[in-house]
Amino acid sequence: MDSPWNELTLAFSRTSMFPFFDIAHYLVSVMALKHQPGAAELAWKNPLSSWFTAMLHCFGGGILSCVLLAEPPLRFLANSTNVLLASSIWYIAFFCPCDLVSQGYSFLPVQLLAAGMKEVTRTWKIVGGVTHANSYYKNGWIVMIAIGWARGAGGSIITNFEQLIKGCWKPEAEEWLKMSYTAKVTLLGSVIFTFQQTKHLAISRHNLMFFFTVFLVATKITMMITETALMPFACFEDTLSQMLFGWQQKFLPCEKKSETKSSFNGTGSSTSKPVANASEKVKKKHSKKTE
Amino acid sequence: MDSPWNELTLAFSRTSMFPFFDIAHYLVSVMALKHQPGAAELAWKNPLSSWFTAMLHCFGGGILSCVLLAEPPLRFLANSTNVLLASSIWYIAFFCPCDLVSQGYSFLPVQLLAAGMKEVTRTWKIVGGVTHANSYYKNGWIVMIAIGWARGAGGSIITNFEQLIKGCWKPEAEEWLKMSYTAKVTLLGSVIFTFQQTKHLAISRHNLMFFFTVFLVATKITMMITETALMPFACFEDTLSQMLFGWQQKFLPCEKKSETKSSFNGTGSSTSKPVANASEKVKKKHSKKTE
Amino acid sequence: MDSPWNELTLAFSRTSMFPFFDIAHYLVSVMALKHQPGAAELAWKNPLSSWFTAMLHCFGGGILSCVLLAEPPLRFLANSTNVLLASSIWYIAFFCPCDLVSQGYSFLPVQLLAAGMKEVTRTWKIVGGVTHANSYYKNGWIVMIAIGWARGAGGSIITNFEQLIKGCWKPEAEEWLKMSYTAKVTLLGSVIFTFQQTKHLAISRHNLMFFFTVFLVATKITMMITETALMPFACFEDTLSQMLFGWQQKFLPCEKKSETKSSFNGTGSSTSKPVANASEKVKKKHSKKTE
Repeated sequence: MDSPWNELTLAFSRTSMFPFFDIAHYLVSVMALKHQPGAAELAWKNPLSSWFTAMLHCFGGGILSCVLLAEPPLRFLANSTNVLLASSIWYIAFFCPCDLVSQGYSFLPVQLLAAGMKEVTRTWKIVGGVTHANSYYKNGWIVMIAIGWARGAGGSIITNFEQLIKGCWKPEAEEWLKMSYTAKVTLLGSVIFTFQQTKHLAISRHNLMFFFTVFLVATKITMMITETALMPFACFEDTLSQMLFGWQQKFLPCEKKSETKSSFNGTGSSTSKPVANASEKVKKKHSKKTE
Repeated sequence: MDSPWNELTLAFSRTSMFPFFDIAHYLVSVMALKHQPGAAELAWKNPLSSWFTAMLHCFGGGILSCVLLAEPPLRFLANSTNVLLASSIWYIAFFCPCDLVSQGYSFLPVQLLAAGMKEVTRTWKIVGGVTHANSYYKNGWIVMIAIGWARGAGGSIITNFEQLIKGCWKPEAEEWLKMSYTAKVTLLGSVIFTFQQTKHLAISRHNLMFFFTVFLVATKITMMITETALMPFACFEDTLSQMLFGWQQKFLPCEKKSETKSSFNGTGSSTSKPVANASEKVKKKHSKKTE
Repeated sequence: MDSPWNELTLAFSRTSMFPFFDIAHYLVSVMALKHQPGAAELAWKNPLSSWFTAMLHCFGGGILSCVLLAEPPLRFLANSTNVLLASSIWYIAFFCPCDLVSQGYSFLPVQLLAAGMKEVTRTWKIVGGVTHANSYYKNGWIVMIAIGWARGAGGSIITNFEQLIKGCWKPEAEEWLKMSYTAKVTLLGSVIFTFQQTKHLAISRHNLMFFFTVFLVATKITMMITETALMPFACFEDTLSQMLFGWQQKFLPCEKKSETKSSFNGTGSSTSKPVANASEKVKKKHSKKTE
């Protein structure tokens, strides 16, 4: 128990997110918002609306998990310190003279550091969501996965929804469907921590948090440096989709004659499924063809 | 009390929905989803999104009533058994080789059986919603009607809303307005069971459940066999709308001169109101003319 | 304490809203709904949907504050008396023969009286929201401001959202952004009453309620009589925006060279900011030019 390794991971899992990691999270979120087209102009025209959007970017995951558990969505406002912290970061990011913050943030090392620290907060959010959901529904493992996922990666859903209401985002079925890499890795983490919570994984939580955080930060920084959306799950997804949905292909002939109209699309993209995750374009082309 | 009839209805009202009626409900909901254009292809492309939509189709009413009562919308996920049941039905319905399920479901008797059993679950949902709302607001009869209605027929609202967010459904005021037959009959049942709950109907609940279920199943199956949207409420609705909104017609002359711009539409469709429910086309034509 | 002035304001702050002020509020809301294009025709075609919209207009603020605090949005339905009151006002407003209500409401004095009484209810709502939020989050002053604001001016948000879902309102970023005068004054009142609640304002609540109500009614009636959207906050807003966001202008040169693409809009509208509130057109023109 008191092996140095254990002490290290235990101390790591007890790290407080409050001042520094939260700041990194808010900084990355606000800068992501600022780089949206028209966001800077909007901040000058209507600071209140821009501030509201920035808060949604910073606290979206918590808001979504509150909605899903029927808790006050405004709870995050009760934590005045974090709100003021995020607000001041929003203020200096948008209204700093000479745009010093953007210039400083444009340096790659700064971005890497901030992004890495933001990924650390993601692990903490997932764990918090899973344990919080567990306090609601004992062993309701589906709820635990959903809440951990919502708190870790729900911000994008909230912000997309806000853009939808504001009319500056026209949704398309395609966009809605395909999960981002962040959503996938958060879902994976949520599943892992849920199994650990329900004692199906024989590993202590602080070790798991350490390993998952290292994995998150490593992949994130690698993706930022190489600027390639590397897919560590592509092969895994292929195998899974092959197992679950691919084996029907041997029945294609009978399917062909048994089905008539809309299911032809199904078979069409089922043939393109095994290579779908590997190359998006192929799928796109196939769907184009079948539509 | 112990008359055989009473015992029969009492035993009927104590029937458990769990394995078989729920399966029928899930089957009908999933098949309705599968027959939407592009749903089958979407299931191949993004199974997770298709599964999510299927869950909304299966548990939409409960989700809506949870939202309206500020209960966790995710509660239905805590009942793992039903979720796994619905998921497996979704899986075999979408990915069964040679599409055996669709072929089996294409036989009319199977559809009639499944639809009838689904209507039985509707009665149970209405009663559950009314009693649940009563536990919140003693004698808050409007809330009881609303919750019973939401749980019985709210699934379509939830799924429409999801399609709206996904952008694959462009709402029109017309669509939003006109209630489906299901919504009307569910509203009727919700009102009846609310009155029974508030002791304004001198009939025992199990008898009422029996009669209402028989009425639901009979009308549903008749509509499916004759393939005509028979309107058992048309005459009733006409009388009601005549009583409430029709008697102003004798004042049309003074209304004509008293009103100028927008109310002309009002008078225009008021003349077409008494026959509105009888023939939709007439109303459509009138509204076209007045718009 | 027992000065006649104190007694007057105390008695005023204890005035019950129930029959008369609520009626005025419902009347103004329903008439605002009726004057929307197509609302009268819609009431003839689908009375239920029109009634639902009218309820949203009458109780929207309460519904929004309930949603934000995770309370049942349907709670307003539990107060049957008010619901029936609002429903009957909706009924006579839409279906009264010869449209007597609209004719009576078309007289300016009636409108002034009703609008003034509606503004009185606004103060009561703000105070109710602030105190209610305070019971949730002790000294969560941001939450108190938000809830007071939502309950006082949230009806428009709810109704806009409903129109968005019904598809008869296409949102634009511009519309979403700029706050109406009502929203601004409600926000001001919410801030003031929150400070009073947190003992940062050395004034008794009943005095504050009296003064704020007088201010609300006076400005509202003045605006209705002069038919000009007078901006009592324009100069204040200019000063504030000058203080917060205007001082970066001296750095424009360095900002010019430091920024490249998207921030040009920012600087463009920053120059137009000090006069933005004074003349909307100038801002519009600038934004046009920069977009």
